[in-house]
Amino acid sequence: MAVILITGGARSGKSARAEALARSFPDQPPIYIATAEALDTEMEARIARHRTRRGTGWVEHEVPLDLVPVLATSDGGGARLVDCLTLWLSNLLHAERDWEREVSELAGALPRLKSPVILVTNEVGLGIVPDNALARSFRDAAGIMNQVIADTADSVEFMVAGLPMKLK
Amino acid sequence: MAVILITGGARSGKSARAEALARSFPDQPPIYIATAEALDTEMEARIARHRTRRGTGWVEHEVPLDLVPVLATSDGGGARLVDCLTLWLSNLLHAERDWEREVSELAGALPRLKSPVILVTNEVGLGIVPDNALARSFRDAAGIMNQVIADTADSVEFMVAGLPMKLK
Amino acid sequence: MAVILITGGARSGKSARAEALARSFPDQPPIYIATAEALDTEMEARIARHRTRRGTGWVEHEVPLDLVPVLATSDGGGARLVDCLTLWLSNLLHAERDWEREVSELAGALPRLKSPVILVTNEVGLGIVPDNALARSFRDAAGIMNQVIADTADSVEFMVAGLPMKLK
Repeated sequence: MAVILITGGARSGKSARAEALARSFPDQPPIYIATAEALDTEMEARIARHRTRRGTGWVEHEVPLDLVPVLATSDGGGARLVDCLTLWLSNLLHAERDWEREVSELAGALPRLKSPVILVTNEVGLGIVPDNALARSFRDAAGIMNQVIADTADSVEFMVAGLPMKLK
Repeated sequence: MAVILITGGARSGKSARAEALARSFPDQPPIYIATAEALDTEMEARIARHRTRRGTGWVEHEVPLDLVPVLATSDGGGARLVDCLTLWLSNLLHAERDWEREVSELAGALPRLKSPVILVTNEVGLGIVPDNALARSFRDAAGIMNQVIADTADSVEFMVAGLPMKLK
Repeated sequence: MAVILITGGARSGKSARAEALARSFPDQPPIYIATAEALDTEMEARIARHRTRRGTGWVEHEVPLDLVPVLATSDGGGARLVDCLTLWLSNLLHAERDWEREVSELAGALPRLKSPVILVTNEVGLGIVPDNALARSFRDAAGIMNQVIADTADSVEFMVAGLPMKLK
C-alpha cells in the first residue's frame, strides 16, 4: 500500500510526475480517475492533452464527486491516479456538499486501501490575497484539504519547474 | 536565543507549526503577539479559531504596529510567537509609517533578544503579477521584508501542505 | 560549461543570487542580458535599482526578444546572466512570435554553449486561478517554459525569502 500526494503550482509537472509514479507499479494496468468534466473547450483541450501524454493502457473513470466509493470498488487492482483533488474540492463546493466531511472521509479511507493511490493537488495560496471572498474561501479550503491529505499520505512531493521536492 | 522564521502560503500550517515551536521552549509560558485586529467578522472568526487551537497557557498581546517595543519589554520571559509579519507590514502601510525603517529596526533588534522569537510570515509573490499597483507594491514590500528577516533569523522554514521545508 | 536556472516568486532574491553566481566565474567580466525594456516608470525604477546593486564591471545588453543569437555571439567570453525569462516570454507573446518554438530553440542551444549561462525566471502558478483568460494562458506558458529550461539546466534553484533550495 502507498498513498502519494503530488502538489505544486499550475504547469509544474504534477500530472506527468504522478503518471510516472502510477506506472512504476507495473503488476496491473494503472487506473486514471479524472475529477474533471469536459464542460468547456479549455477543459476539453486540457483533458485531451493529458490523455495523449498518458498514452494507452489506462483504465479511465470520470468521477467529479464520489471519490471514496470509486477508490473502494477499484481496490485490489492497479495503482489509482486521482487528478486532481483541487477540482474535486471545487466540484464539491459547486454541488453544495459538505467538503470538510468528505475530505475527512477520504483521509480516513486512504490508509485502508490495498492498491496504491497517487493524488494530484494544487498549491493556490502563494499569491496575493484575492479581492473576491469566494476565491479567498476556496483557497482556504484547498489549503486545509492539502494539509489533511498530506498528513495521512505516506509520501508528499512538491513540484517546481518539473522537479520534485520531497516533503515527506 | 533563537530567532525562527516560518513562511508559506495561506493555510499551509504556518501558525500550527509556529505554536508547536513556541511550546517547545517549556521553561515559561509562551507569549502570543497578534498583529491582527478584529476589524471584521472574517478576521474575528480567524482570531477565534487560532485561539481555540492554541489552547490555554498563553500570555496574549495585540500589537498591530509597535513590535520592537513589545519584544523588548517581554524579553527574558517565555518564547514569543509573532503572528504574523505580513499583517504587521500591512498595518504599517495603512498607518503610513516608514516600513523599510521599521523592518530594518526589527531585523537589528532580533539578534539582541535573550528569549526565543518565532515569527510567522506569508509568501505572496508566487502568483500572476497583480493588475493593481497597490497589490504589486505590497507584494514587493512583503518579499523584501521576508528576505531581510530571513537573513537575520537563525532558522527559516517554508511550509507546504502542513509540512516544513528547512531553508536555513 | 554550466547552465543554471534560478526560479522563485517576486522579490525572493532571484536576481541577487544570479548575480553572485555570475560573479563566481571570475575569469572574464560577466555579461548582463536584460530582457526588460524601460517602457514605464515602474520598470525604469526597477532597472535602475538592479543596475545599482550589480555595480560596475558588467557588460550590458538589452535583448527583449532574440536571446539565442546574443548567447551565441557572446559565447567564449564571461558568464552570461539572463534576467529574466518570464519577461522574455511576455515579450515574445506581445510580438506574436511562436513562443513554444523559441523556448525549444533556447533549450536546444544552451547545452552547446561554452561560457556559463545563469537564467532567472519566475514562478507565477501558485496563486488562485486567474479570472482573466490571457493571464491563465500566460501562467500556463510560463510553467511549460520553466519545465523545458529546467530539464536542460545543469542546476536549478528555487528561491524563497532570499534563500536557495536546490531542485537539481
